[in-house]
Amino acid sequence: MNPSRALACARARRSRFLSELKELLRFPSVSSDPARVGDVKACATWLARHLKSIGLQQVRIIPTPGNPLVYASSRQDRRAPTLLIYGHYDVVPAEPLAPWETQPFTPTLKGADLYARGACDDKGQLFCHIKAVECYLRTQHALPLNVKCIFEGEEEIGSVNLLRFVERHKGVLQADAAVISDTKMQGPGRPAISYAQRGGLRAELEVRGPANELHSGTFGGAVLNPIQALCEIVAKLHDERGRVTIPGFYDDVRDWDEAERAYIARGGPSDEKLLREAGVELGWGERGYTAYERTTIRPAFTLNSISGGHAGKGIKGVIPAHAVAKLSFRLVPDQRPDKVAKLFRDHLPRITPPGVQSSLHMEAPTRPVIIDRKNPAVRTAALAYKKGFGRPPVFLRSGGSIPVASAFQEVLGIPVVLMGFGLPDDRIHAPNEKFHLPNFYRGIETSIWYMAVVAQSLGRTTPIEAAVASEWVT
Amino acid sequence: MNPSRALACARARRSRFLSELKELLRFPSVSSDPARVGDVKACATWLARHLKSIGLQQVRIIPTPGNPLVYASSRQDRRAPTLLIYGHYDVVPAEPLAPWETQPFTPTLKGADLYARGACDDKGQLFCHIKAVECYLRTQHALPLNVKCIFEGEEEIGSVNLLRFVERHKGVLQADAAVISDTKMQGPGRPAISYAQRGGLRAELEVRGPANELHSGTFGGAVLNPIQALCEIVAKLHDERGRVTIPGFYDDVRDWDEAERAYIARGGPSDEKLLREAGVELGWGERGYTAYERTTIRPAFTLNSISGGHAGKGIKGVIPAHAVAKLSFRLVPDQRPDKVAKLFRDHLPRITPPGVQSSLHMEAPTRPVIIDRKNPAVRTAALAYKKGFGRPPVFLRSGGSIPVASAFQEVLGIPVVLMGFGLPDDRIHAPNEKFHLPNFYRGIETSIWYMAVVAQSLGRTTPIEAAVASEWVT
Repeated sequence: MNPSRALACARARRSRFLSELKELLRFPSVSSDPARVGDVKACATWLARHLKSIGLQQVRIIPTPGNPLVYASSRQDRRAPTLLIYGHYDVVPAEPLAPWETQPFTPTLKGADLYARGACDDKGQLFCHIKAVECYLRTQHALPLNVKCIFEGEEEIGSVNLLRFVERHKGVLQADAAVISDTKMQGPGRPAISYAQRGGLRAELEVRGPANELHSGTFGGAVLNPIQALCEIVAKLHDERGRVTIPGFYDDVRDWDEAERAYIARGGPSDEKLLREAGVELGWGERGYTAYERTTIRPAFTLNSISGGHAGKGIKGVIPAHAVAKLSFRLVPDQRPDKVAKLFRDHLPRITPPGVQSSLHMEAPTRPVIIDRKNPAVRTAALAYKKGFGRPPVFLRSGGSIPVASAFQEVLGIPVVLMGFGLPDDRIHAPNEKFHLPNFYRGIETSIWYMAVVAQSLGRTTPIEAAVASEWVT
Repeated sequence: MNPSRALACARARRSRFLSELKELLRFPSVSSDPARVGDVKACATWLARHLKSIGLQQVRIIPTPGNPLVYASSRQDRRAPTLLIYGHYDVVPAEPLAPWETQPFTPTLKGADLYARGACDDKGQLFCHIKAVECYLRTQHALPLNVKCIFEGEEEIGSVNLLRFVERHKGVLQADAAVISDTKMQGPGRPAISYAQRGGLRAELEVRGPANELHSGTFGGAVLNPIQALCEIVAKLHDERGRVTIPGFYDDVRDWDEAERAYIARGGPSDEKLLREAGVELGWGERGYTAYERTTIRPAFTLNSISGGHAGKGIKGVIPAHAVAKLSFRLVPDQRPDKVAKLFRDHLPRITPPGVQSSLHMEAPTRPVIIDRKNPAVRTAALAYKKGFGRPPVFLRSGGSIPVASAFQEVLGIPVVLMGFGLPDDRIHAPNEKFHLPNFYRGIETSIWYMAVVAQSLGRTTPIEAAVASEWVT
């Protein structure tokens, strides 16, 4: 199927598509906040209605013990290959609110950027594929291939329920390839395909001291302060060379040969660029690795929050009863989250000072993902990018984690294409998150191209080489 | 003046006095919370009206740049000695609320204890003296001596404005002795006089990292996390022997000879008792000292709170932009808060890891206080306790800080008597704070006795020995 009519539709309807994206961004679908359960559900409902309105079939809001999944598919043609489109409609909290220059859930256009929580991660990116599907259905009443859409509301809290769904309903999601747009390009007009994701594991580390808060004058100096104990534990978890000190933590970390490290270096940002994007002057981390390597082929252990004692204004003269740190491991091949969890659990008592009790609650284990850059599904994606952005993509590793990516690979046994439309300065998870509108529009066109090219190359007689050679691709 | 009629009045009016104390405890006069400014003022107004209603003169609500002072005095007789009565009507926040078994600002009687924030610290204790004054005025229309009352609303935040007032208006507060009831007894029926208070200094230590919150996947491993840096700084502030590592911190700490240490040990709680009161199984602190010594004759450095990253439910996968610890130094003779502040300020850059910036905001410098146990004002207090509680007090050191105590000694040049009516398990600053009602009633009687005895012994021809010998004291 020639994509030219769908492409024309995409260009003609930009302003309408932008309005619709703004509607989607208005839902404060914060999955980590129990108070937002209603908003998350409302967002799922809107999304399902929208998928139905563009002509998709079998639209379902699938309840889970947590937030619902939204599923839809095109009419299935047994002879055509099937593309699984994944995205997540949940977002991280907007807090801290003070640095936001606009309201996080009032999408606001400034120049070529649309500001809102979730604009890039992931509502804007998933919407590229929905709009690509719409353009085909609107102009040709058919798609060049079968699509199945699965959108979840728990990516930011570990995708537990989607992972279970994938295990239990392999048939429902079975496809020839999966495409996920939840990653970054190199810069404006410089597309990238992620071929590696770090895995993850989250933990809440609590230290308990006295049964109740104590007056810090009466008892200060004679009772170990749980905040101090927590700080001492945290300080012991890295050595002075920036390495995690949990025994065995690096045992399964794969060493890459010089050729692969050189390949990685060619595609990735320089230390200077990465640190400029981070807004810091000085780098930090494991010795012997570049900043890009430290965030991609090396594991990391990061404190996400810490709290203890009186959180309000002013100082309250107390020794608190407990203190909590929330933290994330970022794991690389061939580390396994369950093994890391055990190593951490075994190590913690050794670094807990006497006089306090420490405990761990761990969740959201996510395995790292490596994608074969030579897989036809990936090569066709490169082709689609070239058409959509006028430039072939580079292949990047990503430091983040998409929990479902490894499940698609390992449980469904299908290749996963990480076709990101975000920019390094889109500030995902941070205040003033934005989505660069040229990427939204080109993302839609890239998805239109991708469906056309995949239709020719996957599960069919036409090999990728033929697709590359076909008259409307080159 | 024989105190028998005042004492009879105190016994007869217990239930009425209790109702009034409950009224005072209903004000959420939390001085550290800007949202409570109105409640603090309302509390001051109630207190002033109450002082007027019992017959005190010159009742004034004295505005300050912060919370108002409440002043009142009796008709002054130039031939009689003058007693300055100090207390504070502000309280620390009730938070955390979850452990409270009653509403913190709904005073609730359970058995012989009255539960409320501020019940012991300090509304219940200051009220003992007000009721003692009332009993004299009600039964004899006069007091055995002159009294001046000064009640402040900023003790829990460092008494800055009262300290300025003392400096500027020495004449207004001039007296022969000051009595402060804001300390503890040894146990029920076991009175104590505090003859030493630790000084204090509060600090907010902030560590700043990246300009904005960062995605912990994208940047984790290559950017120093401000929470981690803060933990490392905190961990470096004590050594493995429980000593504060700030160079010079112990230079001015007075060494006490064996005789004084033996005296301290006789009066103070055993390690076992102190730790049981704290609700911990294992002690901690500077080697070579008992738990009681660690909280009285040795300085301490305590974390009061820590915060950084997403404070809400769930985990947000970020490297935060900054993290803050709030902490208190507790200082002992002959440490000076200003010198300790300078030592800390000089030391901090040395222990701040490269890649983050640290800063300090320090406030509420309070000098440690030592009171001469042989001073007549103190000896008469011992006599009053013997009459009020049927048992002579022990002399204790207190680990806490009452900022104004050193100002009364040094600026006004008068002896300060720390006549505490609190119990070790009254949970001041903690959830489920209470006041033991027998101590309230005996506290009133002790104050009645104290005024009678002081009138005989201070600034008059009758020496303390004569007071001790007089017919109604022995």
